[in-house]
Amino acid sequence: GGAAPSTARITGVLPGYGRGWWAGRHILSVAQFTRAELHALFDVATEMKQMVSRAGHYELLRGKVLALLFLEPSTRTACSFQAAMLRLGGTCLTVADAGKRSSVAKGESVEDTVRTLESYADAAIVRSPVVGAAAAAAAAARKPVINAGDGIGEHPTQALLDVFTMREELGTVNGLTVTFVGDLRHGRTVHSLARLLSLYAVRLRYVSPASLRMPGEVLEAVAARGVEQSEHGSLDDVLRETDVLYVTRVQRERFDTVAEYDAVCNEFIITPKTLARAKETAIVMHPLPRLGEIHPDVDTDPRAVYFRQMEYGMYVRMALLAKVLGKA
Amino acid sequence: GGAAPSTARITGVLPGYGRGWWAGRHILSVAQFTRAELHALFDVATEMKQMVSRAGHYELLRGKVLALLFLEPSTRTACSFQAAMLRLGGTCLTVADAGKRSSVAKGESVEDTVRTLESYADAAIVRSPVVGAAAAAAAAARKPVINAGDGIGEHPTQALLDVFTMREELGTVNGLTVTFVGDLRHGRTVHSLARLLSLYAVRLRYVSPASLRMPGEVLEAVAARGVEQSEHGSLDDVLRETDVLYVTRVQRERFDTVAEYDAVCNEFIITPKTLARAKETAIVMHPLPRLGEIHPDVDTDPRAVYFRQMEYGMYVRMALLAKVLGKA
Amino acid sequence: GGAAPSTARITGVLPGYGRGWWAGRHILSVAQFTRAELHALFDVATEMKQMVSRAGHYELLRGKVLALLFLEPSTRTACSFQAAMLRLGGTCLTVADAGKRSSVAKGESVEDTVRTLESYADAAIVRSPVVGAAAAAAAAARKPVINAGDGIGEHPTQALLDVFTMREELGTVNGLTVTFVGDLRHGRTVHSLARLLSLYAVRLRYVSPASLRMPGEVLEAVAARGVEQSEHGSLDDVLRETDVLYVTRVQRERFDTVAEYDAVCNEFIITPKTLARAKETAIVMHPLPRLGEIHPDVDTDPRAVYFRQMEYGMYVRMALLAKVLGKA
Repeated sequence: GGAAPSTARITGVLPGYGRGWWAGRHILSVAQFTRAELHALFDVATEMKQMVSRAGHYELLRGKVLALLFLEPSTRTACSFQAAMLRLGGTCLTVADAGKRSSVAKGESVEDTVRTLESYADAAIVRSPVVGAAAAAAAAARKPVINAGDGIGEHPTQALLDVFTMREELGTVNGLTVTFVGDLRHGRTVHSLARLLSLYAVRLRYVSPASLRMPGEVLEAVAARGVEQSEHGSLDDVLRETDVLYVTRVQRERFDTVAEYDAVCNEFIITPKTLARAKETAIVMHPLPRLGEIHPDVDTDPRAVYFRQMEYGMYVRMALLAKVLGKA
Repeated sequence: GGAAPSTARITGVLPGYGRGWWAGRHILSVAQFTRAELHALFDVATEMKQMVSRAGHYELLRGKVLALLFLEPSTRTACSFQAAMLRLGGTCLTVADAGKRSSVAKGESVEDTVRTLESYADAAIVRSPVVGAAAAAAAAARKPVINAGDGIGEHPTQALLDVFTMREELGTVNGLTVTFVGDLRHGRTVHSLARLLSLYAVRLRYVSPASLRMPGEVLEAVAARGVEQSEHGSLDDVLRETDVLYVTRVQRERFDTVAEYDAVCNEFIITPKTLARAKETAIVMHPLPRLGEIHPDVDTDPRAVYFRQMEYGMYVRMALLAKVLGKA
Repeated sequence: GGAAPSTARITGVLPGYGRGWWAGRHILSVAQFTRAELHALFDVATEMKQMVSRAGHYELLRGKVLALLFLEPSTRTACSFQAAMLRLGGTCLTVADAGKRSSVAKGESVEDTVRTLESYADAAIVRSPVVGAAAAAAAAARKPVINAGDGIGEHPTQALLDVFTMREELGTVNGLTVTFVGDLRHGRTVHSLARLLSLYAVRLRYVSPASLRMPGEVLEAVAARGVEQSEHGSLDDVLRETDVLYVTRVQRERFDTVAEYDAVCNEFIITPKTLARAKETAIVMHPLPRLGEIHPDVDTDPRAVYFRQMEYGMYVRMALLAKVLGKA
């Protein structure tokens, strides 16, 4: 820990990773991004999509090593980052079963663990159940740290891939009405996404049970950017105007009683009947995994884009890794 | 899921993986194979063996990504598939501790998990404690799915490597007397292998305690192909005519009492004394891991081929991956 | 298991790995090394450091596969070996959660597991809580086995990287006064390191509570090489003459009472005040992870080299893998 951390503390950027806004930058929060930087990222993500379709892989990050520190389980995000690195010719270091058996589990600080990993790797992905863990790791690090979810805090790369999905599926984000449905109180995914969408000229609709409404601080941040938003108790209020139906998990453990949980589940489950009343051009998104929130019969509807959404996630993470490592 | 799954449902083959019987095919059961297709596979496996011996690796699958979804523990099969992919220049995505901590463990369907993995990968290996899990995954998938064991169902790649081992060690499979010893009731390995061997002109001998006999449906399937078979309570009945002695695990948890278990173990343990009465040209196979079924003193007998059998497994899986991905 | 193990039993070297002392050799104990061989290794490690700094990676072990069998958790050592292999263009096979869910956990012998892994790989790293496990694995193996820690036995690669760190940071090891502080009774790291340092003209100082003194057999081995050593109850006795302050973990589970543990911790914690009384040219080392033994305020002192020490570990393991596999 010599000069590099100090410089990074001032500029948020580590030296030695090349030029450009993204090079050598820790990726911790959607609050970091401007629209111009998003577009630069998405342009590369589109190229990555075409490249994978044509060639499958591209030796852009040959010889680079990515460390993955996942202190809580993750199938999707961990695999997506790994696949992104592998398809760019790089390699991955994974701390096996880090939540239960790693040095962190034995009492080592996240800062020390990240200092370990950066001794071996060129960048680190950190997921933790603790809000602020990735930021704490970044403050100690001489290599870029990417937040892959910090408790109920942020999940910026999920928000990036969500916006990229809208752009790829609908051509543009401006002008869209985006409706969030489900548990809007606990999901870091919808918090990060609503904040990120407020960079665009969108309308946001929040549909949830009264006990699971979007937190006030997210509403305030969105309002501060002048974005039109409204809260609703029923999907019927807004289904006809919705361009993007963003469905979130309703997790049993958030409820005091099973009856309460079942009531919410039945109210907000998406079925072919729901889609029959939706716009023909609408798309249905979900961060996955889903349990019962979207009926499997919806899967064959061309408006169901949640499986393609995962694939877009890989392209966005390829673009992000290439940019942060100064290669795009 | 658009046109591809529909086509696959009709032909069993996914488009876009090139020509040839194996290209783009889900590998779910030994019932899929004909002798001609087996030989085409084994010819490539022999080439892989020579190639590894000469060069160690071969960039045939460069840029390809293989997803491994192991919902129950596996050292051997998981490592074998990984090594096969790595030695062909490809890379692997592993869902860490999938049985306990993955999305599936949290309630996601195997179909959704496979749809996730195929967003990132070019093919998927699935092991599950549930019969039919790999087939269910394949029905939802746009990329080839390979069954690496589904409960007491099938383990087709183990059967393939077992037959390849006989071919490599003894020159040909036709004409052999293959004797299965141990718990023939519960082992998916011996079920798949007996079925697969019935494609050849072999004699099958089953030696087990009365309570652990080969299931009727396997006996019927073998009989339907006109293969000579017989059941025995003692290895002495058939040891002199045996060309391949295939020993299986006798697992403590299958027995009601420890006394019963110990009786079976003592009866069917293979020692140097057993081999003293066997053919000089016989070979001893075991799917491993072994506990006490084969005494370590047997290891130095040239007829003990169970360690080479594992190595052959890697060559067969290299051939399988190359063929399914349309590169051989 | 044919001719190769026999030859290895006589010479300690497996055939077919090229020339040179290290090629094809099992790495089990620091007792194997002479100073000449250490220097040959360290020269390559220095080259690796320069190479990583310039290019990041080097395709020296392209197509080689390294198996990692970690029967107890390890973040640092496992990641360090993986990174070393990846930066040399090789690949790794990891047995996931081996301590709890692997074949070994199910009762397979370590010998059989290593025979499995060597069917797929070119060398194997073994860590086990059992003293002698790596040696037992090596005796059964046809490929090189590297001991990554066997209970309270040895951890030879940690000792190698520790000596390399002294050499890189201080120019030479001869003439140094090395002071070990903390729990000197239980740590395999300090046992291996004291033995290895006795190849050099050093002075060794041991500072520990009376109940956690360096074991007699280590003291005897060091004395047999004519190295000056002494034991102390307080760091103040030796701090002024110390060139290398090697701090070790004091683990709570080693103590009968919490009061006893806390007394030791408070006595031997390193703070900026400690360093104020140390030589200006001294360095502070720690095998990590640390809990409270070194205060985080020490991290910014230029004499704190424990994070660079980890990085040196990667270079030493790169050199070791290259040499053992006959490529350096």
